Amino acid sequence: MLAELRGLNEECGVFGIWGHEDAAQISYYALHALQHRGQEGAGIVVKGDDGLHAVKGEGLVNEVFSGDNLNTLKGHGAIGQVRYTTEQGRGIENVQPLVFRSTTGSLAIAHNGNLINARDLKEHLERQGSIFQTTSDTEVLAHLIKRSSGSLNQRDKVKKALSILKGAFAFVLMTDEGLMVAQDPNGLRPLSIGKIGDAWVVASETCAFDIIGAEHVRSVEPGELLIINDKGLTSERFAAPAERAMCSMEYVYFSRPDSDIDGINIHAARKRCGKQLAREVQISADVVTGVPDSSISAAIGFSEQSGIPYELGLIKNRYVGRTFIQPSQALREKGVKMKLSPVHQVVHGKRVVMVDDSIVRGTTSKRIVAMLREAGAKEIHVVIASPPLIAPCYYGVDISSDSELIATGRSLEQMRDEIGADSLHFLSIDGMLEANGRSPEMKNCGQCLACFTGEYPTEIYSDTAMPHEKEIVR
Amino acid sequence: MLAELRGLNEECGVFGIWGHEDAAQISYYALHALQHRGQEGAGIVVKGDDGLHAVKGEGLVNEVFSGDNLNTLKGHGAIGQVRYTTEQGRGIENVQPLVFRSTTGSLAIAHNGNLINARDLKEHLERQGSIFQTTSDTEVLAHLIKRSSGSLNQRDKVKKALSILKGAFAFVLMTDEGLMVAQDPNGLRPLSIGKIGDAWVVASETCAFDIIGAEHVRSVEPGELLIINDKGLTSERFAAPAERAMCSMEYVYFSRPDSDIDGINIHAARKRCGKQLAREVQISADVVTGVPDSSISAAIGFSEQSGIPYELGLIKNRYVGRTFIQPSQALREKGVKMKLSPVHQVVHGKRVVMVDDSIVRGTTSKRIVAMLREAGAKEIHVVIASPPLIAPCYYGVDISSDSELIATGRSLEQMRDEIGADSLHFLSIDGMLEANGRSPEMKNCGQCLACFTGEYPTEIYSDTAMPHEKEIVR
Amino acid sequence: MLAELRGLNEECGVFGIWGHEDAAQISYYALHALQHRGQEGAGIVVKGDDGLHAVKGEGLVNEVFSGDNLNTLKGHGAIGQVRYTTEQGRGIENVQPLVFRSTTGSLAIAHNGNLINARDLKEHLERQGSIFQTTSDTEVLAHLIKRSSGSLNQRDKVKKALSILKGAFAFVLMTDEGLMVAQDPNGLRPLSIGKIGDAWVVASETCAFDIIGAEHVRSVEPGELLIINDKGLTSERFAAPAERAMCSMEYVYFSRPDSDIDGINIHAARKRCGKQLAREVQISADVVTGVPDSSISAAIGFSEQSGIPYELGLIKNRYVGRTFIQPSQALREKGVKMKLSPVHQVVHGKRVVMVDDSIVRGTTSKRIVAMLREAGAKEIHVVIASPPLIAPCYYGVDISSDSELIATGRSLEQMRDEIGADSLHFLSIDGMLEANGRSPEMKNCGQCLACFTGEYPTEIYSDTAMPHEKEIVR
Amino acid sequence: MLAELRGLNEECGVFGIWGHEDAAQISYYALHALQHRGQEGAGIVVKGDDGLHAVKGEGLVNEVFSGDNLNTLKGHGAIGQVRYTTEQGRGIENVQPLVFRSTTGSLAIAHNGNLINARDLKEHLERQGSIFQTTSDTEVLAHLIKRSSGSLNQRDKVKKALSILKGAFAFVLMTDEGLMVAQDPNGLRPLSIGKIGDAWVVASETCAFDIIGAEHVRSVEPGELLIINDKGLTSERFAAPAERAMCSMEYVYFSRPDSDIDGINIHAARKRCGKQLAREVQISADVVTGVPDSSISAAIGFSEQSGIPYELGLIKNRYVGRTFIQPSQALREKGVKMKLSPVHQVVHGKRVVMVDDSIVRGTTSKRIVAMLREAGAKEIHVVIASPPLIAPCYYGVDISSDSELIATGRSLEQMRDEIGADSLHFLSIDGMLEANGRSPEMKNCGQCLACFTGEYPTEIYSDTAMPHEKEIVR
Repeated sequence: MLAELRGLNEECGVFGIWGHEDAAQISYYALHALQHRGQEGAGIVVKGDDGLHAVKGEGLVNEVFSGDNLNTLKGHGAIGQVRYTTEQGRGIENVQPLVFRSTTGSLAIAHNGNLINARDLKEHLERQGSIFQTTSDTEVLAHLIKRSSGSLNQRDKVKKALSILKGAFAFVLMTDEGLMVAQDPNGLRPLSIGKIGDAWVVASETCAFDIIGAEHVRSVEPGELLIINDKGLTSERFAAPAERAMCSMEYVYFSRPDSDIDGINIHAARKRCGKQLAREVQISADVVTGVPDSSISAAIGFSEQSGIPYELGLIKNRYVGRTFIQPSQALREKGVKMKLSPVHQVVHGKRVVMVDDSIVRGTTSKRIVAMLREAGAKEIHVVIASPPLIAPCYYGVDISSDSELIATGRSLEQMRDEIGADSLHFLSIDGMLEANGRSPEMKNCGQCLACFTGEYPTEIYSDTAMPHEKEIVR
Repeated sequence: MLAELRGLNEECGVFGIWGHEDAAQISYYALHALQHRGQEGAGIVVKGDDGLHAVKGEGLVNEVFSGDNLNTLKGHGAIGQVRYTTEQGRGIENVQPLVFRSTTGSLAIAHNGNLINARDLKEHLERQGSIFQTTSDTEVLAHLIKRSSGSLNQRDKVKKALSILKGAFAFVLMTDEGLMVAQDPNGLRPLSIGKIGDAWVVASETCAFDIIGAEHVRSVEPGELLIINDKGLTSERFAAPAERAMCSMEYVYFSRPDSDIDGINIHAARKRCGKQLAREVQISADVVTGVPDSSISAAIGFSEQSGIPYELGLIKNRYVGRTFIQPSQALREKGVKMKLSPVHQVVHGKRVVMVDDSIVRGTTSKRIVAMLREAGAKEIHVVIASPPLIAPCYYGVDISSDSELIATGRSLEQMRDEIGADSLHFLSIDGMLEANGRSPEMKNCGQCLACFTGEYPTEIYSDTAMPHEKEIVR
Repeated sequence: MLAELRGLNEECGVFGIWGHEDAAQISYYALHALQHRGQEGAGIVVKGDDGLHAVKGEGLVNEVFSGDNLNTLKGHGAIGQVRYTTEQGRGIENVQPLVFRSTTGSLAIAHNGNLINARDLKEHLERQGSIFQTTSDTEVLAHLIKRSSGSLNQRDKVKKALSILKGAFAFVLMTDEGLMVAQDPNGLRPLSIGKIGDAWVVASETCAFDIIGAEHVRSVEPGELLIINDKGLTSERFAAPAERAMCSMEYVYFSRPDSDIDGINIHAARKRCGKQLAREVQISADVVTGVPDSSISAAIGFSEQSGIPYELGLIKNRYVGRTFIQPSQALREKGVKMKLSPVHQVVHGKRVVMVDDSIVRGTTSKRIVAMLREAGAKEIHVVIASPPLIAPCYYGVDISSDSELIATGRSLEQMRDEIGADSLHFLSIDGMLEANGRSPEMKNCGQCLACFTGEYPTEIYSDTAMPHEKEIVR
Repeated sequence: MLAELRGLNEECGVFGIWGHEDAAQISYYALHALQHRGQEGAGIVVKGDDGLHAVKGEGLVNEVFSGDNLNTLKGHGAIGQVRYTTEQGRGIENVQPLVFRSTTGSLAIAHNGNLINARDLKEHLERQGSIFQTTSDTEVLAHLIKRSSGSLNQRDKVKKALSILKGAFAFVLMTDEGLMVAQDPNGLRPLSIGKIGDAWVVASETCAFDIIGAEHVRSVEPGELLIINDKGLTSERFAAPAERAMCSMEYVYFSRPDSDIDGINIHAARKRCGKQLAREVQISADVVTGVPDSSISAAIGFSEQSGIPYELGLIKNRYVGRTFIQPSQALREKGVKMKLSPVHQVVHGKRVVMVDDSIVRGTTSKRIVAMLREAGAKEIHVVIASPPLIAPCYYGVDISSDSELIATGRSLEQMRDEIGADSLHFLSIDGMLEANGRSPEMKNCGQCLACFTGEYPTEIYSDTAMPHEKEIVR
C-alpha cells in the first residue's frame, strides 16, 4: 500500500558507526537506505577532535545533506537518524540525534520507538528541576542518565536509566568515548549489528549494511546494552529479556524487502505470506496484481501458489514527490489521478486478485478498487497479506485510532461492501506467524500482535496515548 | 536496466491539449506521466487571451513548475515537453516548446525525434537569411513554415514544410487557432490521440492519458497531419505513409509498462518477450530475478514460462536522485553501493537467472553480476530480452556509438566473459517481433530494427551523425 | 527617490571584454557594479574554444551566477547584460545577451536602449521570411546583419544594419573573432571604453571599470563602431554623428554617483544641481535632508550652498529585498512602514527641506511628506533637483505615460497641494544644464531634454509607443 | 566602517510584543529593522491557543520567514531575535528564542548580551543534574528559574534567577501568561519599551518602533523587571541599579542612526562627535568623506564644523551579499574590488579627510587609504570618531582580542604608518562623552568605556574570556 495514502507510519530509523575515518559519509549512505522509515527530518552527529558536531534538518537525507555540510563532519564515530514526524513532533528542535552539552562532555542520542511512561517520567524529572527543550520522549533518557547517582560510572548510569524506561526503544547513544546501543526488553523494534572492516555499525535495518558494504553480524538482543569504543564491542544487560515481541508491521509493511530480521528475509517472509494466503483462500481469477511497492512480494507468492499469472496491473508513478502540485478537487473529479495508474490491457475484462499488505482505514483500497473497475476489471478480489487491524499501537507506529480502523465494528462482509470489492480476504494470524518463521503454538511467538489482538506485550500507562487517541486509552 | 547507468536515452516526450479550461494543469500532470522520457528540462506553452505564454526550465517537471508559475498559465489550449539533453543540447534556450513570435501571430513547437537532414536544411535556410537561436533541429521546421510560399494558407505551409523533413519526428505545434500534430512517414516515434470530455489530447505515450482521465482514441498515423481547433479534429496527409517502423527500443526499454503502442500493451509485450526467451533458452536455475525497473515484466514472463520462481533478487533504491552525493572512489572500493542492492537471502547459494532488457556497453551488467556473485549467487545466467545492439540510431535515441557497444566485434562467448556471467543469452529478432505482435515474415514488420541490424528504414544523410559518432557515418 | 516605488526605470546595463583570461569572472564583477541598471535578469556569454557559451537567468547577478555555472564559462572574451524588464519583456527568452547560431559562426548581442523603428523593421523582415523568438527589439539587429548583402564582409554588414536602426542604442556584439561596439548617432545612452592590462573593456557606466581595476579611456562616440579583436581596437563610423543628446535622467537618477559621463562625475553634477537649486530658490529652514539614495548628492549641495545643515532625516532600510513579505493593508494602516523611516529627533519641530531627484507620479513624494509630518516636521519644503517631467520617453526609459505624470495638466500650486508640502520647487532646465557642464545657450546642448520639453532629438515613428501609451503617440 | 570587513560584531537584537492580534507579523517587521544587529539567524516564537510555537532558522530574516511559515504563527504575543554568530555558537540549536517545554507550561527566551559567570553557573547547575542542549549562555537562565525554590511564584523565581547573573543582558521572556523583560543592573545593552495601540512592545533599538508604527515610551532601566500580560505592564526590580554603563560602541557603530538611546538620537550624537573631532583636530583639506554607512553622520558633522565640503568619496556597493562570489587572489591582485569604490573625480588631486567611526585591526583602513591614494588623492587624513580601542569586551561585543588591536602597543605615529595615512586622529574620550550628552566629569558617566580604558564596570570572572582570548584574561 502507498505510505502517503494512509495513516500508518513508522517513527524512524537509526544508525551508528565507530572506528571508521569516513564515519559521516558512511552514515549518510546508511540513512539513505533507511529513508523509507522517515522522510521528514534527518541528522548526523559526528565525534570530531573537539567534540560532537551536528548537521540536522527537515526533509529528505539528500535535502538535508549537501557536499558542503557533510564535509564539515569529520571524525571516526557518528550516529544518525531519519525521522517520521507526527503533528506534535514538528519543529527543527525535535530532529534527532539530540545533543546534550556539558562541561564534562557531550552526549548524542538517536531513538526509534515510543516510551509509554514518558509523561510520568517527565513530570517526575521536572519536579526535580529538569527542563525540556523538545516535545520528544527521547530527551527523557538524557535527563535520567544525568540524574543517576553520581557514584556510578557512565555505563552504569546509562543502564540504570534504561531500566526505568517502559515501551519500545532502539537507542543509539554517542559520547566522546564511543557508542552505546540499547534495545528494549521486548525487542519491539529491529536493531542489528554489523562490521565494516574493523569498524562496528548498528542500524534499524540490515539493508543499511548492504549499501555501505558492511557484514551483518547479529540482532541486538532484548535488554542488551552494547558498549562500542576504541577497544571494541562489549555486551552487557540492563534488563532481563522479556517475552520477545518484534513488531509485526515490520514484516507486513515497514521494512525493506532486502532487509533481514532475526535471520529472516523480509521479501521471503512476505512471499510466504502470499503463498499462505493462496492456501487459505480459494479464488478463481485470471490475474494477480500487487499494490506497489510493499505488496509485490506477497502478490508474487500468491501467484506462485495459486498458479494464477502475476501481472503489473497497477503502476506507481516514481516521480511524484512532496513538492508535487496536487490536482484540485475539480480536476480530480475530471479523472486526474496521481501516484497509481491501472494498466488497462492487463485488467480489462479480467477477474483480478488485488493483493495488498494491510488495510487501515480502507479509503485507499476503496479508491484502487474503483480505479480497477473503471479500467474494466470484471471481478476484483482483494486479498490482504496480514490479519485485520483492530487496536492502536503504543510502541511507535502512528496508526490511526481504532475508531478509524475499517476492521473495528465491521463484519468482513461490511468491509467488503465498504471498499467495493467482489470478495475480501485476510491472512490468518497463525498463517502470518508461520510464514514469518514464528511458532504460533507458543504464546511467546516472538512477534508483537497487539494491533491484531489488542493484547499488549507490556503494561500500558495512562500517558501512552497519542494525543488524537486520548479518549480510547484503557 | 538503470537509465542513469548507461548511454541509452530517449530524446523527449510531448503533449498537447485543445479545448479544456484547465489546459496547463492537465499538461502538467501529463508531462509528469511522461517524465521518464526526459528529466533535464520541461516546458508548457499555453494559448491565453493575449497570445502564447511559456514557462520553461531545466530540471524535473515538479522543479520547473510550482503553483505560482503554473497558475499564471491561463488558457484552453496548451502544449508541453519533457526533455532529455545531450551535451550539445544544454542551455535554457533549447528547452521546448520553442516559441516563435511574429506580428501576424505566434507559433509554438514541441518535438520528439531527430531530423536527419537538419544540417543541410539549416545551411540552406541560413543562405536565405535565416538565423538560429538554438542548437536544436526543431527550429528548422519554424523557418521552413515561414518561408513556404506566401500564397499558401497556414495549413498548406505546414504540410509543405513537413514534407521536406527527413528522419523521425512527432511534432505538436500550437498557434493562436489550434494545434497541429504530425508524425513522420515511417512513424518512428510513438504519438497517440485521446479525448477528455470534448477536448482533444495528444501524447507520446498513452500512460499520459490514464493520469488525466482521458480516453485513448488511436495512434497518429505515419505521414498524417492532424488539425485540432475549436471546430474539432481534421486529419490530413502531408506525405504518403512509408514502411511503418516504430522504434524497437520503445518496446524494449523506453515506454512505461502501462502504455500501449498500436494497441499493444508494453508490459504485456515485454512479458511475452520474457516467455519467448524462456522458450528459446534452456537454463536450469533456482530463481529468476529482473533488473529493476524496466526488466521486471520480462523477468515475470521468463519465470512463468520456465517455471523457475520469480524473486526480488535486486532492490532499487527509490530515493537516489540527481542531488545525491556520489560516494568517492575510496568509499566505492570499501563497498559503498548506490541505486541497486542484491537481496542476499534470495540469491545466496542459488543458481540465478538475471533478466535484463538490453545491454549497451556492458559495464552495468558486469557490475550487477559481480554484486550478485559477492552476495553468494552460485551461478549467474544473464538473459537479455532483446537482440544484441550493433548499430547507432539516427532517429533520436542517444545510443553509444557502435565502437562502444559490447556486441560490436565480440562473440557471444567474449561478451559473456566480459560481463563475468556463467551464461549469456539474447532474444532472437524474430522472437521479439512475434512477442510484440509484429509479423517477422514480412519485410515491413512495422518495427525499426536498425540498431539490431544496421539496416535503416530511411536514407541516411551525411549530417545525421551525432557529434561523437562523426567518424562512423557510412 | 526609491526606484521600487515609482514608474521610472532604465532598460539595462551592458558590458564587454576581450583579451583577458578571466573574461567571465571580470564580467561578473562588472555586471555587479551595473546591477542598479536592471535587477530582473542577467546573462554572460563567453567565447570559448568551441564557440559561444551562455549562462542567463532571471533575478540578480548573484542569484543567476554561482561558482558552479560561472566556472563553466571559460574563454578570453565575454559580453554581459543586466536587465530591467517591462511587463511585455518577461520570460527567460528575453534575457540577454541573445545568441544567434549559424553554421558559419555565432553572434551574441547585448543592448541598452530602445529602437523606435523596430516594429516597422520587424514587419519588413518577417515579410522576407525572418522569424522572431523574443519580444525584444534587439533581435532585429541580428536579422538585419544576416540579411545584409552577401558580398559585404562582416564589419560592413554590421555597419549597414546599424545604419538602418533609429532610436537609442548602445550595442555590444561578440562573434568568434571579437567584439563590436556601437553607439547610436545621438549618443542617447552612455557607453564607455576602458582598459585592464592589455584587454579592452566597454561598459554602460564607468563605475564598472573601478570595481574591476580598469582604466577609463573615453566614451564611445555617437555613430561610432568599435572593432575589438586580437589585433586591438579599431574605430569606424556607421553614421555621421547627429546632435549629441545624452539622456538627462542618467544625470538625474539612473547612473551611480561614482560614474562619469563625458568626463563629468555624476555625484559632482548632482551636487551642483543641488547648489543651483539653492541659488534659484530661497527657503528659510532648519534642516536639509535627501531621499536616499539618489538624492543625497543634491541634498549635500543644497545644504552647502544654502548654509542649512544637512541631516539624515530619512533612513532607507538596507535589507528590504524582493523576497520580503509586504505588510497587509490592515497592517499598513496600523503604521507598518517599509524601506524608508523618518528620523524623529532630526525632523521633529523642524522646518525641513526635503530634496528629491525627480517626481514622476507624485505618489511617493506624497507618502514621504506625510511620513515626515507624522514625525513632527513643522514645515516641509520639497525641492526637486530636476525640471518637471511632462513627456514620455521613447529611448528606453520606462517612464509612466504622460497622463500619469503629476506635472501634466497641473500648476505648481496644484502639485504642491497634491503632495501636501508647504512649498514645492523644481530646478530650471538651464540650471540643470549648467550644473551638468552643458551649455544651455546652444540648441545642441548635448543632453536629451525630451521628457522635460516634449521635443525629441530624433524623428518619432508610429511604433515607438510603449504598449500602455499607444493612445498618446503624436 | 564595513561590518563584514572587521572583527567587531554585536551579538543580537531582541523584540517582544504582547496584546496584538498580528503579533508574529509585527515581530517580523521589527526584526527586519533590527537586522543590522545580527544576520546569521532569526527566530520568532508566538503564544498561540495551544502553547508556544517557534519558527527559527539560519540566515537573514527574509530568508528564514516566508509567507508560509510566518502565517502558521498565530497568537497575540510573540518574541523574536536576530542573531550574530561566533564560531562557537553555530548550529540551528543555538538560534533564539530558545524554548523550554514543561508539563506545567513553556518558556521562551531571547537574549542580547553576554553573561560573565555563565561557565561557573553551568558547572554548578550540571552538578545539580541540569543538562544543556546549546552552547549559549542563555540556557543558564532557564535552568536557574526552574531550580528556584518551589515555594516562590513564577515572578519571584525569575527575579531570583536574574539576580544571580553577572554581565550584560537584555532579556525578553515569554510564557503562556505574558512577557517578562529584564535589563542588567548596569544597563549595558540598549532595550526600550513602546506601545502600539494597546499592545506593549520591547526592542533592542527604537528604530524597530518606527517601522511598526509604535510609540517610544522609555528605556528599560538597569535592574528592572517588566511584567507584561493581559492586565498591562508592571515594573519591578530584581536588583538595585548599579553604575549605568551603556555600551559605547552602540553610539559609535552598532545602532542605526535613526534609533535613540536614553533620549539621544544616534545620528545626532555621531554628528556631534564629528563636529567635536573638527574642534579637536586642525586639518587643511579640500574634501571630507565618510566610510559608508556608519561613518556618514560623523563625516557630515566634521564637514559642517570645519567648513571643508562633504563629498561622496567612497561608494558602497549595495548588492554585495553573502552569496556573492569572492574574487580569487589572482583577480584581487589585478584590481578587482568589492563592496567599496573610490569616486575618482571627487578625490583626485585632493587633500582628503576620511572619517571612520572606529579602527579595530586597521587592515580595512589600510586598504581604503590605499584605494583612495590609487584614485589620486594627494593627502589622506584619517580621522576616527571614537577613541582608540585597547581592551577586549566581555559584554557581548565580539571584538578582536587586544593583541590584534592596532592601538595595542603602537604609538599614534606607528598606527599612522601602519595604515599609510598622512595623518591620523582619534576623538578624545571626553569629547565623545560630551557629544553623546554624557557628563565626562562624573565617574558614573553612564557609558561603558571598558574597550577604551580597560576599566570594566563589573567584576570580571575567570570564564568571561572568549575562547580565542583565553590567554589574555586578567
